[in-house]
Amino acid sequence: MGQRTGGKAARLAAAVDLGGSKILSVVADGHGKIVSRDLRATPADKSPQAVIRAVTGSLRAAIAGAGERASRITSIGLGAPGISNPETGVVFTSPNLPQWKEVPLRDIVAREMGMPVWLINDANAAALGELYFGAARGTRNFIYVTISTGIGGGIVTGGRLYTGTSGVAGEVGHMTIADDGPECTCGNRGCWEQMASGTALAREARKRISEGADTAIVEIARGDATRVTAETVSQAFDRGDALAGELVGRTSYYLGVGFANLINIFNPELIVIGGGLANMGDKLLAPAYREAGRRAFKEAFRAVRFARAQLEADSGALGAAVWALRNAG
Amino acid sequence: MGQRTGGKAARLAAAVDLGGSKILSVVADGHGKIVSRDLRATPADKSPQAVIRAVTGSLRAAIAGAGERASRITSIGLGAPGISNPETGVVFTSPNLPQWKEVPLRDIVAREMGMPVWLINDANAAALGELYFGAARGTRNFIYVTISTGIGGGIVTGGRLYTGTSGVAGEVGHMTIADDGPECTCGNRGCWEQMASGTALAREARKRISEGADTAIVEIARGDATRVTAETVSQAFDRGDALAGELVGRTSYYLGVGFANLINIFNPELIVIGGGLANMGDKLLAPAYREAGRRAFKEAFRAVRFARAQLEADSGALGAAVWALRNAG
Repeated sequence: MGQRTGGKAARLAAAVDLGGSKILSVVADGHGKIVSRDLRATPADKSPQAVIRAVTGSLRAAIAGAGERASRITSIGLGAPGISNPETGVVFTSPNLPQWKEVPLRDIVAREMGMPVWLINDANAAALGELYFGAARGTRNFIYVTISTGIGGGIVTGGRLYTGTSGVAGEVGHMTIADDGPECTCGNRGCWEQMASGTALAREARKRISEGADTAIVEIARGDATRVTAETVSQAFDRGDALAGELVGRTSYYLGVGFANLINIFNPELIVIGGGLANMGDKLLAPAYREAGRRAFKEAFRAVRFARAQLEADSGALGAAVWALRNAG
Repeated sequence: MGQRTGGKAARLAAAVDLGGSKILSVVADGHGKIVSRDLRATPADKSPQAVIRAVTGSLRAAIAGAGERASRITSIGLGAPGISNPETGVVFTSPNLPQWKEVPLRDIVAREMGMPVWLINDANAAALGELYFGAARGTRNFIYVTISTGIGGGIVTGGRLYTGTSGVAGEVGHMTIADDGPECTCGNRGCWEQMASGTALAREARKRISEGADTAIVEIARGDATRVTAETVSQAFDRGDALAGELVGRTSYYLGVGFANLINIFNPELIVIGGGLANMGDKLLAPAYREAGRRAFKEAFRAVRFARAQLEADSGALGAAVWALRNAG
């Protein structure tokens, strides 16, 4: 990584993982040791200005929490959702922050905080976190996939994060796997995340319920369709509900289709799975791995391992910290 | 590239592009200058042994053609179709050479020729050829896509060919874009090459004709369904045939779906298009680029350029020569 990490003088970074619902800030060193942290809600329905105030407020709280070690903080890493360019520091659009359009987030935060700031996509940050401190340590070619309300990705080739020509590479959730599938928030159709995310799972459940399906999901959601989430489907699955079984199976199937694509394209040694929906565990993931094995080239499938993310809630913030420490040189 | 290229003493490589129908051997230097060449038919319906004899025969003819410069040949590059591992030198399977199963091609040719041999997938070789001497010179992140009977690919990230963990990366033709689409020779379903290759185009034409479609394709194929190829559809298109227009449009559409996936995943600066079907030119490709533009992230689509392959027939052999010269160190 190039930065000094030895002894008391080791440099620290402050880093934020800005999500659609939560803001996590940490102060961390180059070994992934977290010195202090701050967690608060994202005012996602408010203006970008309000969200940025919450980000800088959270950063200041984490820095204050570092006490006298705050003097060793030399840079800030900023993990943000959506499509952003790490070179220009601009967040173009963000599905989870619908009011955001071409926000020069890096420069605003840098001015507010009086420190160099390095912007990185949230899934790329999580991939870096897992590469340096988590499930992907020591690998050269791996893909990080986060499965939650959407599907995000981070690509590591030759031991380095691959960010593409204008910094927006890795949007594996927006590869089409069903060309005539549902329209996606990104404007494309049949994107992986439209077929296999938590949002897709809940959407299909609501659709089937509106068609009159007899299922425990209704009872768990207390008869209120708007309460049907991936979590209610998961609970119904655990009660042996037939529809939930079918819907989870459908999600596994589509996850497997996308995994097979990544395996045929990248021939990675490892796919690391993070995100809320992945917490369903084997009931969702084991059939997905089997579907991938049926579809991918044998020679490529033989070479790949699947692993759950290890840092989960901290991977984005720790990855953003690494990004800042490494770029600050 | 590392090899010495100055003056008369510059090293040369012999290189083969082994295809399903043709074998092209060249002797070339590190600047892409071809000293001699040999072209012959591939006895694809014969045993692997017979094909390998044709390969070594072609190599010997090209080397003989180099005259006294043959003494400067230090290594052999071998571009082969199908799934192969450059590290072990084994060709696992090859759709265009159906009798091939785990053939240790590299070691057999090395023993026959008494020279170090470097194996590389044919599409990867073509990507390297375009990177060093063709349409992709000077780029860092580009994808080579060959559209012919199948769809092959080569991925260049950070200015280097990306071959993955066991050497089989880049199989972009086998990413599923229609999860319930036709079964592919690879065992997967709805692969890009099942939807958008020349084979797919001819298959759809034959299907529509068998259903009784009124089209000039029948006349061009002299009433013989087995004569219907992508080429006959293209000729019918040029006569203004409605079905041909529809079928070419369908192929463009699916090409666009796949291009959008590559753009969202790789955010490349360039996509280079080679292969026989691409010779249809703008009538096929311009609508495909537009479909990709409708589907891909704007920020990624803005960054990409499409270009036709420049070396075409020679790209695989020249890329294999580069592969040998570079690996021979």
